[in-house]
Amino acid sequence: MTQSGFLDDFRQMSAFGATPGGGVERQAASAADGETRGWFSAWLAGNGFRVETDAIGNIFGLMEVVPGAPYVLVGSHLDSQPLAGRFDGAYGVLAAAHAARTAVGSVSQPRFNVAVVDWFNEEGSRFKPSMMGSAVFTGLLGVADALATTDPAGTTVAQALDDIGGRGAFAGLDVAAYLEIHVEQGRELEETGTTIGVVATTWTAHKLEIVVSGEQSHTGAAPMADRKDALYGAAELIVAVRRLVDEFEPEQLHTAVSEMYLDPNSPVAIAREVRMLVDVRSPATHILDTAIETLKTRIDEIRRLARVDIEIVRVTEWSSGPFLEEGIVLAAEEAERRGHPHRRSATVAGHDATNMKEVVPTILLFVPSVDGISHNEREFTSDDDMLAGLEVLTSVLTRVVAGELEAASSSAVALSSGVELG
Amino acid sequence: MTQSGFLDDFRQMSAFGATPGGGVERQAASAADGETRGWFSAWLAGNGFRVETDAIGNIFGLMEVVPGAPYVLVGSHLDSQPLAGRFDGAYGVLAAAHAARTAVGSVSQPRFNVAVVDWFNEEGSRFKPSMMGSAVFTGLLGVADALATTDPAGTTVAQALDDIGGRGAFAGLDVAAYLEIHVEQGRELEETGTTIGVVATTWTAHKLEIVVSGEQSHTGAAPMADRKDALYGAAELIVAVRRLVDEFEPEQLHTAVSEMYLDPNSPVAIAREVRMLVDVRSPATHILDTAIETLKTRIDEIRRLARVDIEIVRVTEWSSGPFLEEGIVLAAEEAERRGHPHRRSATVAGHDATNMKEVVPTILLFVPSVDGISHNEREFTSDDDMLAGLEVLTSVLTRVVAGELEAASSSAVALSSGVELG
Repeated sequence: MTQSGFLDDFRQMSAFGATPGGGVERQAASAADGETRGWFSAWLAGNGFRVETDAIGNIFGLMEVVPGAPYVLVGSHLDSQPLAGRFDGAYGVLAAAHAARTAVGSVSQPRFNVAVVDWFNEEGSRFKPSMMGSAVFTGLLGVADALATTDPAGTTVAQALDDIGGRGAFAGLDVAAYLEIHVEQGRELEETGTTIGVVATTWTAHKLEIVVSGEQSHTGAAPMADRKDALYGAAELIVAVRRLVDEFEPEQLHTAVSEMYLDPNSPVAIAREVRMLVDVRSPATHILDTAIETLKTRIDEIRRLARVDIEIVRVTEWSSGPFLEEGIVLAAEEAERRGHPHRRSATVAGHDATNMKEVVPTILLFVPSVDGISHNEREFTSDDDMLAGLEVLTSVLTRVVAGELEAASSSAVALSSGVELG
Repeated sequence: MTQSGFLDDFRQMSAFGATPGGGVERQAASAADGETRGWFSAWLAGNGFRVETDAIGNIFGLMEVVPGAPYVLVGSHLDSQPLAGRFDGAYGVLAAAHAARTAVGSVSQPRFNVAVVDWFNEEGSRFKPSMMGSAVFTGLLGVADALATTDPAGTTVAQALDDIGGRGAFAGLDVAAYLEIHVEQGRELEETGTTIGVVATTWTAHKLEIVVSGEQSHTGAAPMADRKDALYGAAELIVAVRRLVDEFEPEQLHTAVSEMYLDPNSPVAIAREVRMLVDVRSPATHILDTAIETLKTRIDEIRRLARVDIEIVRVTEWSSGPFLEEGIVLAAEEAERRGHPHRRSATVAGHDATNMKEVVPTILLFVPSVDGISHNEREFTSDDDMLAGLEVLTSVLTRVVAGELEAASSSAVALSSGVELG
């Protein structure tokens, strides 16, 4: 199997939205995302794929080798966080394209067709929720709702996609299985000397949109006892969210607050409202449930302490749960056969595979991230690890296309991003 | 003395930038500020004042009755916080204009001329620092620096003033004394059944611009022990700032954080930087100093706890200090003579009078604020209290113009906002 050109292609692709710190900034439907998508579409077309875009901006590269048969879909996402690394998502999309090209040429009696996908807005930094394109494609999120979502400047997804020519009318396809490879974004593979992680479980994640309401007053003159300071209430909540972690064993709970909007955000007026997103994750559902209950108790205390109202206005969640055992075994076999150290992994981060595994047989592979650094320009995966990942992905895809994943052979699922309404 | 028309004028003026909640929003050099300034300039011209604007956008209404003599200046500010009350500043400007008109007509042998002033950007919500116009006029802040200051959108003061036609070339004037009346923004007058507060002291205030630096990473995937979360560090700091208050007797220390900017402010990326403003005030300098020292110790602890860097990048302060005793006595006499309950007050908030008292004899009067509510649409002062304040201000101004404030008679100070550089 040849992997010629992969590293050259990866370096070319990494120039779009490149930042001085060696990373990229390609938030969903930004100009830089548009340029990367354009380059990738041209690559697909130049390598014999039929390129299609659907109503939510997912890009597909189709290779039909068994007329009328369902597709094995393989991909990830090209969009990034602000000031992010160049591997997160983009590595998986390019590896998918190279693997698909190779697999199609190497299976003598394919059972399925192959399609590569770049999912729109996996990151969710500009438009919430994250994993938007795969959520719409799997029916977990309505296309009209997704298109109407606005960024902080008030631009809708529909408008932003139109600005980069990013919406199409692709009707969808029958999907037999989904494969994805991604950088780990943790330290486990590196610390255990492992090259390939075969993801067996997903952490459960809850994202709580919270509004803290106080009362605007003078930062200097208002008597302390009279104040209803929404930012002070929010600060007590952020501290409480962080301290939740200490009530459980190490690495059993991850919590964060990273997004926050203040009104009026004036130096001389106490905030009347703070809106924030609380991110709580655990490998165990019962730990997450206990943590959320404890948090609610703390919220009641903070309401009294800071004399503010605190309302949880929306909860988005994705569930933990195992990946397909047959897929895990098949992927481990291929890593073993190629001589790459491998182990079962858990993913803390959500991935498009997290959505896809709810509807079709799904395999998710990891390659190491140096120091576990992620969503940061210093994110790094070595060339050797990228190539090892590509090799294993190609082998796994080849076997799945050949019909060797039994679960994929039972019945394909017709998926689409619906009609374009925006 | 007639006060006819004052309440009508006040209601007319309150229509500019009016908000549904009964307040106004007229941030410095906004369209609504421009409309209010236009209306006020027309009022001045229509009542026989010569209207001038200086390089930093202060508006003056001059009434020269003693050719060549220095001026008694009386005024406040027309700009407001976002979603603010209609009394803060605006009451004082209109009361100054009415008082000046009456005083000029009632002094048979004036010693000084009279000028009304609307100070530009007292609030500091859009452009920092607050009390900008009076700071430039008194030489505490350079005009070029002030004009180059930007709002969060990057617009300079110079550009914003030009957008409302708000810059002029007034050369300044010789000032013998400064008078201002303002709503109290506290509860003391109301709780003690007092109509007129004669301000005797100012609280000391320190404003600390602080940058918390962490490292961007994945909100979900990054191991908790690896995180350097700037928002978590900022939250611990906000809590520490609030709790400082509990270490002193009630109402000996006011603290607040009300303005904050996050980078990148993404739902899935830990904040790499948070910039915030910490406001600390006390009637006693030694208490403020102790509080700041305690805060610095807490900052060291938070650096270690949150694994972030915390830097105090700028400190702006104004000092406490007494107002002119002779002015306090004169104002108390006039309140007494008019039959209005009065007392010596302290101001926690900064006022343009806080700047002016550093350079010329200054008298600052307060009228009650219901429930002490301020920087809020629900701010309220009754018509009776507004008229009582106008009556006392007019009496005090009349006596000062007649030469009855000895400190004003010693030597006038030539003040100006310098040449227009922008």
